[in-house]
Amino acid sequence: MTLRALAFDVFGTVVDWRGSVIRELTAFGEAHGVDRDWAQFADDWRAGYPPAMDRVRTGELPWMKIDALHRLILDELLERAGIDGIPDGDVAELNRAWHRLDPWPDTVEGLTQLKRSFTITTLSNGNVSLLTNMAKRAGLPWDCVISAELFRHYKPDREAYLGCAELLDVAPAELALVAAHPSDLRAARDAGLTTAYVARPLERGPGHEAPRVEDGEFDYLAEDFLDLARQLGATTP
Amino acid sequence: MTLRALAFDVFGTVVDWRGSVIRELTAFGEAHGVDRDWAQFADDWRAGYPPAMDRVRTGELPWMKIDALHRLILDELLERAGIDGIPDGDVAELNRAWHRLDPWPDTVEGLTQLKRSFTITTLSNGNVSLLTNMAKRAGLPWDCVISAELFRHYKPDREAYLGCAELLDVAPAELALVAAHPSDLRAARDAGLTTAYVARPLERGPGHEAPRVEDGEFDYLAEDFLDLARQLGATTP
Repeated sequence: MTLRALAFDVFGTVVDWRGSVIRELTAFGEAHGVDRDWAQFADDWRAGYPPAMDRVRTGELPWMKIDALHRLILDELLERAGIDGIPDGDVAELNRAWHRLDPWPDTVEGLTQLKRSFTITTLSNGNVSLLTNMAKRAGLPWDCVISAELFRHYKPDREAYLGCAELLDVAPAELALVAAHPSDLRAARDAGLTTAYVARPLERGPGHEAPRVEDGEFDYLAEDFLDLARQLGATTP
Repeated sequence: MTLRALAFDVFGTVVDWRGSVIRELTAFGEAHGVDRDWAQFADDWRAGYPPAMDRVRTGELPWMKIDALHRLILDELLERAGIDGIPDGDVAELNRAWHRLDPWPDTVEGLTQLKRSFTITTLSNGNVSLLTNMAKRAGLPWDCVISAELFRHYKPDREAYLGCAELLDVAPAELALVAAHPSDLRAARDAGLTTAYVARPLERGPGHEAPRVEDGEFDYLAEDFLDLARQLGATTP
C-alpha cells in the first residue's frame, strides 16, 4: 500500500516542550520576582498531563481541552510551590506557554521536504487553537491541523488514529504516525496505521536516553525529520 | 472587540469553482469522446448541491461528506446526459474535480497579507480532505483547515459558525466570516460573528452581477482579498 499522508505527534516529536517551557517559566519567575527549580517545575507540569488525560479518557472528567488540563495542573503546582497573588491574566498567559513551543532544529526543513511528497498534518492531543498558534509562531508548514479535540478522544484511543485517516480520506495503512514515543506508535500500529519512530533523545533534557525500540517493531526508524525525508524519498523538490 | 481570526467561505469566495469545473469536464469529455454543454453541466452540478445539503440538514439523508453528495449529483447528471459506460475510477476522478479548483487571481497574495495579522482558516461545507488537497495544489496558506464536516452541521446551521470560533478559542465577534454570499454572511451575523462581504461578480460566469447587499448590512464590503487586507490594515509585513 502506498503511503499518502503523515500525521505527527507534536509535543516532544515536533517541538522541544521542555526547553521551551523552562524558558517561559524562567521569564515568568523574573517578571514576578520568584525563583524556583523551573526545570523540575516543567517536568512536573508535563508529568501531570497523562494522568489528567486519563481522567478524561475514563470519563471521570468531562471532555476538556488540553489548555484546560494544563491550567488545572498549573494551578496545583503554583499552590504547591507557594507562589500566590499572581493576577489571573498572568497565569493564563503562562499557561499559553504550550502554544509557544520551539521546534527542534531539523523540524521546519524536514517538514518542508516531507510536504513535497505527502500530506502532512498534526495528530496531537493539543487542542486546535494551541496547534494553530504554535504553527503560526514557529513556521510549521502543516497542510492541515488535526487534533484529538476533533474526535473528543485522546490518544492512545483508537478513535483518534482512525478519525485522522477518515478526515484525510485515506486507508489507515496509507497514513503513517510519526512520533518519538513508542506507546503512541504501538496504538497507531494496532489501529492499522503505518509507523515511523523518530528519536528525540533530548526530549527529557540532557543525560536521558531515547526510549528503547525493538528491531522491526515499527516500519521506519529515523534519526530526525531530515533522515525520515531521505528514507521516504521526499528530499528533492 | 478586536478581530483576531478570519474564516473563509471557499467555493466561489476563494476559488473559481465554475471555471475550474468546466475545465475538468471539458478534459473528461475529450478523454471519453463525449461532447456536451459543459458550462451548463457545471451549473447543474453546482445547483444540485444546496438541495442535497438540505436533505442532510433536515435529516432525510444521514451525514455525508460533500464528496459523497457531489457524487450522487454527478451520477444523476451523467445518466440524464446519456453518458454511460465510464469506468468507476474515471467518474471518481472527475468527482474530485472539486479538489482541484483554481483560486481567484488575488486569492493567494491576499491571504498571504491577511495571514500576517490574523489567523486565517477555511470555514467551508467542503470536507477536510477536499479542502486540504485544494490548498496543497493551489498554494493556499491556511493556518488551519476547518470544515462543516467537523461539526456534522452544514452552513448555514449556527453550529458551524460557533464551532469554528470554539475551535479557534475566540469569541464569535473576534471571528469574521469572509464570503461572497449574503445568505452565508447573514447566518454568521445572526450567530454573532463579524462579517466581511467580498464581491465575486464572475462566480456564475460572465454577464452575471454580484448579489445585492444592503448598505451597512455587513461590517466590511471589499472588492477582493487585497482590498480587504487594506481595510483591515494587514498589508505590511
